[in-house]
Amino acid sequence: MNALTTPLLTDLYQLTMAEAYLYAGMEESAAFEFYVRDLPVNRGFLIASGLESVRRFLENLHFSSQDVAYLAQTGRFSKKLLDYLSRLRFTGDLYALPEGTVCFANEPLIRLVAPIPLAQLVETRLINLLHFETIISSKAARCSLAADGRATLVDFGLRRAHGAEAGLLAARSSYMAGFSGSATVLAGALYGIPLFGTMAHSYIEAFGGEQEAFVSYARANRNNVTLLIDTYDTLQGAGHAVKAARQLAQEGIRTHAVRLDSGDIPTLSRQVRNLLDQNDLREVGIFVSGNIDEYAIRKLLDEGAPVNGFGVGTKLDTSEDAPYLECAYKLVEYAGKPRMKTSQGKATWPGCKQIFRRSENGLMSGDTVTVSGDRLEGRPLMEKVMDNGRWLSNSPDLKEIALRVKDQMATLPEHLRRLETVPAYAVAFSSALQKLRSETLRSQG
Amino acid sequence: MNALTTPLLTDLYQLTMAEAYLYAGMEESAAFEFYVRDLPVNRGFLIASGLESVRRFLENLHFSSQDVAYLAQTGRFSKKLLDYLSRLRFTGDLYALPEGTVCFANEPLIRLVAPIPLAQLVETRLINLLHFETIISSKAARCSLAADGRATLVDFGLRRAHGAEAGLLAARSSYMAGFSGSATVLAGALYGIPLFGTMAHSYIEAFGGEQEAFVSYARANRNNVTLLIDTYDTLQGAGHAVKAARQLAQEGIRTHAVRLDSGDIPTLSRQVRNLLDQNDLREVGIFVSGNIDEYAIRKLLDEGAPVNGFGVGTKLDTSEDAPYLECAYKLVEYAGKPRMKTSQGKATWPGCKQIFRRSENGLMSGDTVTVSGDRLEGRPLMEKVMDNGRWLSNSPDLKEIALRVKDQMATLPEHLRRLETVPAYAVAFSSALQKLRSETLRSQG
Repeated sequence: MNALTTPLLTDLYQLTMAEAYLYAGMEESAAFEFYVRDLPVNRGFLIASGLESVRRFLENLHFSSQDVAYLAQTGRFSKKLLDYLSRLRFTGDLYALPEGTVCFANEPLIRLVAPIPLAQLVETRLINLLHFETIISSKAARCSLAADGRATLVDFGLRRAHGAEAGLLAARSSYMAGFSGSATVLAGALYGIPLFGTMAHSYIEAFGGEQEAFVSYARANRNNVTLLIDTYDTLQGAGHAVKAARQLAQEGIRTHAVRLDSGDIPTLSRQVRNLLDQNDLREVGIFVSGNIDEYAIRKLLDEGAPVNGFGVGTKLDTSEDAPYLECAYKLVEYAGKPRMKTSQGKATWPGCKQIFRRSENGLMSGDTVTVSGDRLEGRPLMEKVMDNGRWLSNSPDLKEIALRVKDQMATLPEHLRRLETVPAYAVAFSSALQKLRSETLRSQG
Repeated sequence: MNALTTPLLTDLYQLTMAEAYLYAGMEESAAFEFYVRDLPVNRGFLIASGLESVRRFLENLHFSSQDVAYLAQTGRFSKKLLDYLSRLRFTGDLYALPEGTVCFANEPLIRLVAPIPLAQLVETRLINLLHFETIISSKAARCSLAADGRATLVDFGLRRAHGAEAGLLAARSSYMAGFSGSATVLAGALYGIPLFGTMAHSYIEAFGGEQEAFVSYARANRNNVTLLIDTYDTLQGAGHAVKAARQLAQEGIRTHAVRLDSGDIPTLSRQVRNLLDQNDLREVGIFVSGNIDEYAIRKLLDEGAPVNGFGVGTKLDTSEDAPYLECAYKLVEYAGKPRMKTSQGKATWPGCKQIFRRSENGLMSGDTVTVSGDRLEGRPLMEKVMDNGRWLSNSPDLKEIALRVKDQMATLPEHLRRLETVPAYAVAFSSALQKLRSETLRSQG
C-alpha cells in the first residue's frame, strides 16, 4: 500500500459513516465546502493551494483488492460496503478557487458535490492536502513580501518538514508563491522546479583545509559554486573563499556566492561584502541560511545587510508561527436542502456559495460571500473545475500559477502587505446568504 | 517515482558533495551523529523515535534507472557519479538509541558509519524521519503524562498533519508513547494499531433528526457506537443519545460513548454525565475532541471533568507548540580523525560517542556523554543495530516499544513529569570527551 495514494489514508469514521449511509439508503447528492474558519494571528491573507494534489487524488481514487481485503479482515464492515468500495470511482463535481488565489477566512476554497457516501469519504485526504499546501503557500508569500524583490528565496526545508510529502509539497507551494527554487531534488524531478544547493559543513571538515575544499568542490561542480564559509571562522572562511575564487577564475570557473549559516549576519555580511569587493569579486553574491523566516528577511534587508539570497528552511516548511489552520470541510447541502451546524463557536453557513471580489484603483477592496447563483458587484472567484468526475481543463503549469500569485499579490491593499496585519480585509456575507441562514436555522430547529 | 522511497527525496547538495568526494578520491569512512542541539521551551525530555523508518529507508536505498535518468538529463553530474549511484546500496554500520528511549539535548540518537559519500547522501531523509517522529512521540508522551491513566487517548490528527506521511507516522509515534490507538485506517493496516472512530457533524445534518441518525448509525455499526451530540445543542443532543441508547440496548447494541467537540467542556461533560447516570447509562463514556493537547487534558482531568477519553488531533500531529527541533546530523569523525565545527553558536562535539545513564531509587538521575569505548558509571544507551549493511536484529514489535516507553516514563524524575519543566535534566560531558574536544580544536585550528 502506498501511503500517498491508498484511500485507506483516511479516518475510520469515513468508512463507518459510509456503512451507515448505505444502511439507511442515503445516497443523494451532497455539497461540502472546505474553508478556513479564522486566520492565524500572523496571517492577513492566504494563498489557496493544493488543488492539483486534490485533482490527482480524486482522479486516482479507488480501493485496490488489497485495500478491500484489509477492510474485510477487520470484521467491521458489511459485504455491501466492501462491494460498494470495490466499485467506487470519483464521479462528482468540483468547484474551486484556482490555485494561487488570494483568499480569506470563511471563503470556500473548494466545493465538492457527489453522492453523500462518496463526498464524505474523501474528506480526510482533501483537508490533509489543502490545509498543508495552503499553509505553506501563505507562509512563502509572506517571505516574498518581506524580500520584495531585493533577494532571491530558496526552499531549504525538506529535512525538518514533517515527513516526505510535506517536504515535497512545500517545495511546490513555495515556488508558487514567489520562491526561485528549492534544494529538494525530487521537486525538480516531479515539478520542474529549479534546484539550488551549496555544501555542508561536514564537507569542509572532512577536507580539513577550507580553501582546498572550496577549489576541489568547484572543479567537481563547475556550474554550481556557492562556498560555505562559516565552518570555523567566517572572516577567515571568507578569506579562503577569495583565494579560491581567484584561483577558480583562472580555470574559467565562476564562483556564484558564499553562504553564511551562523553568527551576526548584519555585521558579517557587510564585512564579507567588503572583502569580496576589495578583491574584485563584486559578482560573487552573499547567500544566508539558518533560522530564516519573513521577519528575519525583512529585518536584514531593511537594515541594508548586503544579502542576495536566502535559504528558508524549517520555519517555512513547518509554518513555524502558524503550523495549522482552523479549517473544515463542511456539509452545506444534502438532497437539495441547505444544511448547517450550530455548535457553540463552530456554527457554519448553509448552502452552496460563490465569492465576489471588488477592486478600487487596481487594489482589492472587499469580498462578499453569497449563495451560488447570486450575482453581485465584482469578480466571481470560484470556478467549476470538474464535472461528473471529469476535469474541465488540463492542470495549469506551475509557472502560470506562480504568475497568478504574483499578479494577485500586486493587488493586495497596503495593510495586507505588512507582516503584522491590522485591520483585517473586509469579507461580508450577502443578504441572500443571511436570509438562507435564517431559513435553514428555522427549518432545522 | 514514489516520494516515500526514492533517494531523490534529498537536498541537491548531497549529490554535489558526492560528486566532489568522488572527484577528490575521498571515500574513507565517516561517522555522523544525529542529535538535538537544544530542547524547545516546553520539552523536558524527548522520546527517540524513527529508527524503524530509518531501517526501511537504508534497507531499500537504491537509485532506480528512472532516478539516474533524471539526474543524467539535468546535465549537472558526471558519468562517474551516475555509475556510483546506480550501484549504491547501504553498506554502513549504525548505532542507535532503541526507539522509545527517553533522551535529551546533545545526546546522539544515531551514529552512522560509512564511506563518506554514502554517509553524507542519506542525511536529508534520516533527519526528515528522526526529527518528525521524535517530535510526535515526545508530544504524545506529554499527553500521556497529563492523562496519567485517567483517560484513554486517541490520535485524531491525520487531516491537519503535514501531508500523508506525517499523518501516518504520527499514528505510530503516538501509539508508541501511550496512546490507545488512532483514527487513521492506514495505521491499522500497516502497523496493527487499534482504530477508533465516531461520526461527523455532516452525518447528523444529512439525517436531520439526531436520534434517528444515532439509531441508524448504531444498527449499521453495531460494535463501534460513539454518538456525536453537539451538532445543534449539546444537552438536547445528549437527550437524543439517551433515548437512542435505550432503544439500541433493547436491540442488543451497546452504546460505548458520546462525543463532545465544542462548547464549555467542564460544564457540559458534567451535565451530560448526570443525564447519562440518571438514565442508567453509567457504562456510556464521554469522549472529548476539539483543540485538545496536554494542557487541555491536564486541566480538564484535574478539574474533575468526567471525561473518559480524548481525541487529540491537530496539536499532536503538528506538535503545535514546538513544530520543530533544533537538530543536526553532524560529521564527528573522518578517516579515523575526530572532526568538529566551531561556527558561532553551532559548535559541535567531535568523535564517536556513548551515553551513560545513572539511576537513583529507580529514577533517572543523570546522563554523561562520553567518547565511544569509554566506560562510566550507569547504563550505556546506544546499541549497535546494523553491521556492514545488515541489521543485527528483527524490528521490535510496536507494542514492545510502547512498553519500553512506559517503563522509561516510570523512571522520569518528578520535575520531568511536569508539563512545565524546571530545572533541566543533568546531561554532562565526560572528561574524555572534553579532552578530545580540546585536542580536535588544536589539530583543526
